[in-house]
Amino acid sequence: MFNIAIAQSGGPTAAINASLSGVFSRSAISPEIDEIYGAENGIEGILNDRLVNLRNILTDEHDKELLINTPSTVLGSCRFKLKDASADDSDYKKILDTFNRHNIKAFFYIGGNDSMDTVLKLDKYFREKGVDIRVIGVPKTIDNDLPETDHTPGFGSAAKYVATSLQEIIRDSRVYSIPSITIVEIMGRDAGWLAASSCVLRANGEPAPHLIYLPEGEFSPEKYLKDIENVMKRYKAVLVAVSEGIRFPGSYYDDTVDAFGHTQNAGIGKILENYTKEHFPYKVRSIELNVMQRCSSHIASLTDLNEARRIGEAAVDALIKDNKSGVMMIFKRISNNPYRVEIVDTPVENAANKEKKFPSEWITDEGNNVTIDALNYFLPLIQGEPVIEYRNGIPVHFRLNQ
Amino acid sequence: MFNIAIAQSGGPTAAINASLSGVFSRSAISPEIDEIYGAENGIEGILNDRLVNLRNILTDEHDKELLINTPSTVLGSCRFKLKDASADDSDYKKILDTFNRHNIKAFFYIGGNDSMDTVLKLDKYFREKGVDIRVIGVPKTIDNDLPETDHTPGFGSAAKYVATSLQEIIRDSRVYSIPSITIVEIMGRDAGWLAASSCVLRANGEPAPHLIYLPEGEFSPEKYLKDIENVMKRYKAVLVAVSEGIRFPGSYYDDTVDAFGHTQNAGIGKILENYTKEHFPYKVRSIELNVMQRCSSHIASLTDLNEARRIGEAAVDALIKDNKSGVMMIFKRISNNPYRVEIVDTPVENAANKEKKFPSEWITDEGNNVTIDALNYFLPLIQGEPVIEYRNGIPVHFRLNQ
Repeated sequence: MFNIAIAQSGGPTAAINASLSGVFSRSAISPEIDEIYGAENGIEGILNDRLVNLRNILTDEHDKELLINTPSTVLGSCRFKLKDASADDSDYKKILDTFNRHNIKAFFYIGGNDSMDTVLKLDKYFREKGVDIRVIGVPKTIDNDLPETDHTPGFGSAAKYVATSLQEIIRDSRVYSIPSITIVEIMGRDAGWLAASSCVLRANGEPAPHLIYLPEGEFSPEKYLKDIENVMKRYKAVLVAVSEGIRFPGSYYDDTVDAFGHTQNAGIGKILENYTKEHFPYKVRSIELNVMQRCSSHIASLTDLNEARRIGEAAVDALIKDNKSGVMMIFKRISNNPYRVEIVDTPVENAANKEKKFPSEWITDEGNNVTIDALNYFLPLIQGEPVIEYRNGIPVHFRLNQ
Repeated sequence: MFNIAIAQSGGPTAAINASLSGVFSRSAISPEIDEIYGAENGIEGILNDRLVNLRNILTDEHDKELLINTPSTVLGSCRFKLKDASADDSDYKKILDTFNRHNIKAFFYIGGNDSMDTVLKLDKYFREKGVDIRVIGVPKTIDNDLPETDHTPGFGSAAKYVATSLQEIIRDSRVYSIPSITIVEIMGRDAGWLAASSCVLRANGEPAPHLIYLPEGEFSPEKYLKDIENVMKRYKAVLVAVSEGIRFPGSYYDDTVDAFGHTQNAGIGKILENYTKEHFPYKVRSIELNVMQRCSSHIASLTDLNEARRIGEAAVDALIKDNKSGVMMIFKRISNNPYRVEIVDTPVENAANKEKKFPSEWITDEGNNVTIDALNYFLPLIQGEPVIEYRNGIPVHFRLNQ
């Protein structure tokens, strides 16, 4: 018997605790596994030996149910980049110390592109040193930009929130008799999946969003003005869905660079609002969906939550049954109708530090919308609603500590 | 037998269509009432004779259910101020023409403070001219700032959205190990009811929002810095709920003035974010809940929707049974536990063009939070969840036209 550790990393999602629940519950019934440790704040918790014993915490069936419907990461998160071991292996030694101290033989890391970099480096280090500790990545990101997997846990819930909110915003924007343009800025620094997913409203006959702009397309300010002019001929209230990452010539970019070298370019909605106002006499406003799009578990996709849990369980199976390490679990879509996926694994180097862009063939020739193939891809991911428990009229969250 | 007209006015809410449904359904079974007209874009639809026959449109039981759960105003809205009849009665004559042309003997106007001004003026004009057309106001506003009534339809749903979102935002903000401050800007130009309502999270043991600032209190930037300093001693991630209308000395105010003389002061969240960053080394961000807080019917309060429907029905009863005119329907709270309200009416001059402020005795001595009395007032208003119909994973809305 041996112990395992689980950690969560990167930006929060509505489904990342469902994956934690999946890893925990499958581990808890595996005879090979003794203690199940959760690391606080991702790999930082391993580095600093801040572990909690999840068997002692997740004892109550009701708490386990609440955990699945609680947004964000109950164990905390981090943005921490491991240096190359060849340059400086001090952190690797600290991590190994923690693992050895607690007889931890397997580490499950739930995260996105950057977290998979940690999985890759740790696995490589342990293999080179002949250390028998296995490392498995469980994907999550609302950006849906991880390679190899059909989609990522967390994305479906974010897409369902975005679609639901955009439909409410278009109802709101149509009330006055004057023409109006509403620009909604949607998360996705380099990949436009989430903004593109707003096309699902079309499945219910809703023409909004009338225009969709993604970082994968060429954004031309002149063409944008023509697009607006064209849709304003047909609609009184126009809704524009724009990915935060589109390149607007001369736009304001914050120079802040995070530990992974990403720039933080916020505010494209406001920029586009001002630009539109300069050229049209219409009422123009912009809305930023902000962090609500990644943490709105009250309108999560049941498909997403179930899959997030299942991929966590499958990660434990990959360890126990197949003795895997250095892999990331992935979804393979078997069919669209009925929707079916299977969960397999892929070498983590296929996903670490790489991004999967929205396919250019799913962007319309006009560059201002997406195709029916995109709609068919997105639709299954937002299906179903979890049963939310309310107390005093407010959803109940599971809280590890205040 | 006679005909009636209904119109909706002012900013959208999640419950205004429920009130329309209430007026319609009670009218539809009243033997005195023949045709039921809906005016497009509020009083503008009466002025310009843009009426729809609701008996022909709301024929399907399923559509009527959908209408209740559809946000914003299905008939459209307006911001239109009637001139004093003594100065210029041309619009009054146009309105009277429309009413006479369609044998309309009663007009129900669903709206806020400004719409009640229209109810007041029309009623006065008709009484002075000896015209037998009755005018009744049905309140709605997410701002909860109408006098006389215990609360307003639309407010409970907005409060439930705000509480639900703030709880998700605090989960999101706690994930990293570094200290952080999140400032959430909440609607309420002159009255802080909605920002204050975020205190309901306390009922479930959630300490956030740690600070609440309302336009009814004195806002001192120096005191604010001390408040932040104090709460940061106890909490790693602090959530500040701020009403958009607080007076920040030297702050940016947009000079736009609408037809009712209101200034549009947006952006206090951003201003406070920058001010906080100047004084603390912590991660600081601001979030604007924007129009989502007034149109998020997917997380509406069932209590609110039911009351909105009932107050619409009661308006018809006030006409048919009591021959009322020049009144606004109001809620009187009978008891808190169990929560009970009765619906009566009040002369509309008590509400028109007036605002009910958040009570100063419900603001704590420190000026940065609200009392338990406020919590007890708010809590019943957010109880219950409507059954939302989903198609393709998205809530289904009733749409009168595209």
